[in-house]
Amino acid sequence: MDVSRNSVSMEQWSSIIDERMLDDEPVLNLQRDGEGTYDAVFIGGGAAGRFGAAYLRALGGRPLVIDRWPFLGGSCPHQACVPHHLFSESAALLDRERLLDGKLWFGLGERKVSILDVVEVFRHGRVAAHAFMNWQTKAQLEVEYVLNAPARVLPPGSTPGSDGARHTVEAAGRAFSAKNVVLGIGARQNPLDAPGADLPGIFDFATLVEELDYEPRRAVIIGGSKVAVEYGSFFQAAGCATTILTRSPLLATQSLHHVDADLRRYVVEGMRKRGVEIVEGSSLLEIKGGDRVERVIASGPDGEMLEFECDFVFNGTGESPNSELPRQWLGVDTGPRGEILVDKRMRTSVECVYAVGDIIGPPMEMFKARKCGMTAARNIMGEAFEFDFSEYPDFFHTTYDVTWVGLSEEEARAQSNDIVVIQMPPKGMADGEIPLPCSEGTMLYAFLRPEFSGFQKCVVDGRSRRILGFHHVGYGAKDAFQYLDYLLRRPEGLTIDEMGQMNELFLNPEHFIQLCRLRAGRRELVDL
Amino acid sequence: MDVSRNSVSMEQWSSIIDERMLDDEPVLNLQRDGEGTYDAVFIGGGAAGRFGAAYLRALGGRPLVIDRWPFLGGSCPHQACVPHHLFSESAALLDRERLLDGKLWFGLGERKVSILDVVEVFRHGRVAAHAFMNWQTKAQLEVEYVLNAPARVLPPGSTPGSDGARHTVEAAGRAFSAKNVVLGIGARQNPLDAPGADLPGIFDFATLVEELDYEPRRAVIIGGSKVAVEYGSFFQAAGCATTILTRSPLLATQSLHHVDADLRRYVVEGMRKRGVEIVEGSSLLEIKGGDRVERVIASGPDGEMLEFECDFVFNGTGESPNSELPRQWLGVDTGPRGEILVDKRMRTSVECVYAVGDIIGPPMEMFKARKCGMTAARNIMGEAFEFDFSEYPDFFHTTYDVTWVGLSEEEARAQSNDIVVIQMPPKGMADGEIPLPCSEGTMLYAFLRPEFSGFQKCVVDGRSRRILGFHHVGYGAKDAFQYLDYLLRRPEGLTIDEMGQMNELFLNPEHFIQLCRLRAGRRELVDL
Repeated sequence: MDVSRNSVSMEQWSSIIDERMLDDEPVLNLQRDGEGTYDAVFIGGGAAGRFGAAYLRALGGRPLVIDRWPFLGGSCPHQACVPHHLFSESAALLDRERLLDGKLWFGLGERKVSILDVVEVFRHGRVAAHAFMNWQTKAQLEVEYVLNAPARVLPPGSTPGSDGARHTVEAAGRAFSAKNVVLGIGARQNPLDAPGADLPGIFDFATLVEELDYEPRRAVIIGGSKVAVEYGSFFQAAGCATTILTRSPLLATQSLHHVDADLRRYVVEGMRKRGVEIVEGSSLLEIKGGDRVERVIASGPDGEMLEFECDFVFNGTGESPNSELPRQWLGVDTGPRGEILVDKRMRTSVECVYAVGDIIGPPMEMFKARKCGMTAARNIMGEAFEFDFSEYPDFFHTTYDVTWVGLSEEEARAQSNDIVVIQMPPKGMADGEIPLPCSEGTMLYAFLRPEFSGFQKCVVDGRSRRILGFHHVGYGAKDAFQYLDYLLRRPEGLTIDEMGQMNELFLNPEHFIQLCRLRAGRRELVDL
Repeated sequence: MDVSRNSVSMEQWSSIIDERMLDDEPVLNLQRDGEGTYDAVFIGGGAAGRFGAAYLRALGGRPLVIDRWPFLGGSCPHQACVPHHLFSESAALLDRERLLDGKLWFGLGERKVSILDVVEVFRHGRVAAHAFMNWQTKAQLEVEYVLNAPARVLPPGSTPGSDGARHTVEAAGRAFSAKNVVLGIGARQNPLDAPGADLPGIFDFATLVEELDYEPRRAVIIGGSKVAVEYGSFFQAAGCATTILTRSPLLATQSLHHVDADLRRYVVEGMRKRGVEIVEGSSLLEIKGGDRVERVIASGPDGEMLEFECDFVFNGTGESPNSELPRQWLGVDTGPRGEILVDKRMRTSVECVYAVGDIIGPPMEMFKARKCGMTAARNIMGEAFEFDFSEYPDFFHTTYDVTWVGLSEEEARAQSNDIVVIQMPPKGMADGEIPLPCSEGTMLYAFLRPEFSGFQKCVVDGRSRRILGFHHVGYGAKDAFQYLDYLLRRPEGLTIDEMGQMNELFLNPEHFIQLCRLRAGRRELVDL
């Protein structure tokens, strides 16, 4: 179907997408019927491709986006980040119900809450986000696209055409001529590698959303990724007893950068207090079952054999880039984990071929995907723009938002012998000895269960007075870390003195500004 | 009692405070038995005095704090901001229960939730915050104080003593010698001015916490202050039908600066959708009742007589500075609303007398109180430091966090004919037509009741590309506004281009970074 000349409303987009999910009829939104040469064809309309195309269009270029799904936005609003956030919000609410049960109006008790119902809320509602992406990209961003159609890049010609075209991309039975190709077709869940890995009842973040059709009551999670922690926290909060089997210590610095040891302790102990069973140093050996999984066999930290009854297995072992087809099409170089190798301008080893988003490897985060897309667009349009994502603010969910940026205390102490730490609860105080930190989202905890009201730490270099890292467990601070990241990464950084002069919005979820103010007057900084 | 030489634990502080609330025995924490001359005596140990004293001590000075209560921190943790945040968190949770009733695990129905129970949670728990303030101020901040003792300043001597002392402050039967006095004894609720204003059943934020002993079922709020909106939203969410009677339009720019018209509409309509009755242009005429309030008589916007049945009246008419005693003691000049007049260094009209916090008038906000204290301390210790609080980020609660900084769209358009607006939902779309903005706290709304998932707007100057204002209704963005305020107020400001290059933490409650990125590529900016 061709919507190129129509104005399509949100409601119409919802219907179109629902229909196209059931067939393979392409959706065309093209100028000049797709004739002429595009500055770039973006293969994959997820976060990286969509933002890249929008940016290229904003710069005055002509982009085309092609996606196999009938909507733009990619896996994020369909199977990945958006449902994850819905589940994590549910986890936070259910966690409060459990921890405050019997107090005030809280009365959920030990009642199991349906995971399937929450999944179905997502399934039924996700088309609205899809419709918005299609609507915005056409109506507001004026980007051409072909949806519900797989793409294929033809082998590159040896010389550019008279109009600068170097590549031809086929989709929906048409050939599109492009000066540049931008690869952004993401990553996929790593399969489990053990006997029984194909039994019914084994899910990952994508198949959970697509295929779950029963109510899990006893879950085993394989892997220690962010996804494992996030989904495991949700399952447990819903009342589905959950075990996490992980090779490495959970949330350790092997897999995540800059995780502070105190933050990690608060988070992991918090999960255990809520009933999540965490078995570190374990390896999956086998999954057993009949019509559905029934038990997981693993080796324990001392090599002992462990067995876990379950009716649900969740694969949280991480993802690998979808680089096979691009390698076939174009011969782009890839790295040891299958990631397409790019420079800081997102250029691959093949001329006029860029790669963006999860396909270039970790961190598989939204900011990186979108900014990769922007970076490719700027370079294609003639600007030598580099994107370095070696440092960035990071987060995950348990039943809390856990957020950090900059150095952990240990990393800071390895660099300097004059490190000052400002934290809540103060060092030496037990969780719950004071009802701090607290703010929106932890007020009831502060008054009724103070040991659950969160944790925070600010790491300062005593000599330069510059702040090296911020760390937070709670609610409502995540947004702030975007700007703290910007401030820390400025050449001049951010000092405790500048922090102490900012205008806090009491009761700010992270109490960093006012705590810094309490120390900033001192010439010789000390802990707080 | 004298704790000067003891190490006092959190637990011991809780007992001491509980006991001292019942008597008038002073609590002394003094060095050198209070002998010698203090650089400053802070009268009032609330946010302004406590932070001022801590800063002065950090700078190497010798402060003394005197407070009439047996704890530091003032009204904030005792009667004002902290219970307000507890009530607002409850309001947000109960609001979700009402709006999602019957879906997933939500099943509160129309059941009334006890306001008294929530108040009692606060009453029983507040001593922990008090204990922490006393503990931190003694153990970590090393500030001397006299608590549970009213202070009195003697008439100033005409010449300083040999040690620089200019003032003598009496408290707890002792006389303390001071080079400077810092007045920080806050403000108090304005009384209602109408027949029946002394009936039982009339409360303000302070007496609600101290005296409520029954369950309100039908509330009338007099006044349109932030407190009126915040407490009214809580009462309504708890199931207590609430009417707000206000002279001026609710949340209009007469009383709050920089309130955007679209934000105001979303908020006020949102309150009405939830059942709050808002009568603008009304004036209280009389309160009637017997053992308790029974009805409120008011004139309506067209002068008509209105009558409201109720069993609870809440005074939300605003506060006035406690400047009477300081005026008697020292003859400090005051303004038309009783506020002590100060310059940007917090100096009053009397030499070596400073005033800080709510006593100098609005905005009666935490950041101002604490930074006033810091400003006085720095000036007392010899630094010519000025604090201008004419511009600051602002917020209030309904059942949402409502936060803004910088100019409203109308203010911006009055300054320039090239204003670009980036907002969600986009202009022309109805609330609920798209499930955006959404993030932690509004995910379930986005999927089940999208009209309640929030509102946001970013106002940009098209020529300079500088951002002029940010506006947000939802959850989890408040903290970010502290840093957005800092960035906007930099001499160089913050451009849409800088925003577009920041690292967002998806799903960031305010979607400002990524929305800016979608437009930043354009030389000529346009709305989004």
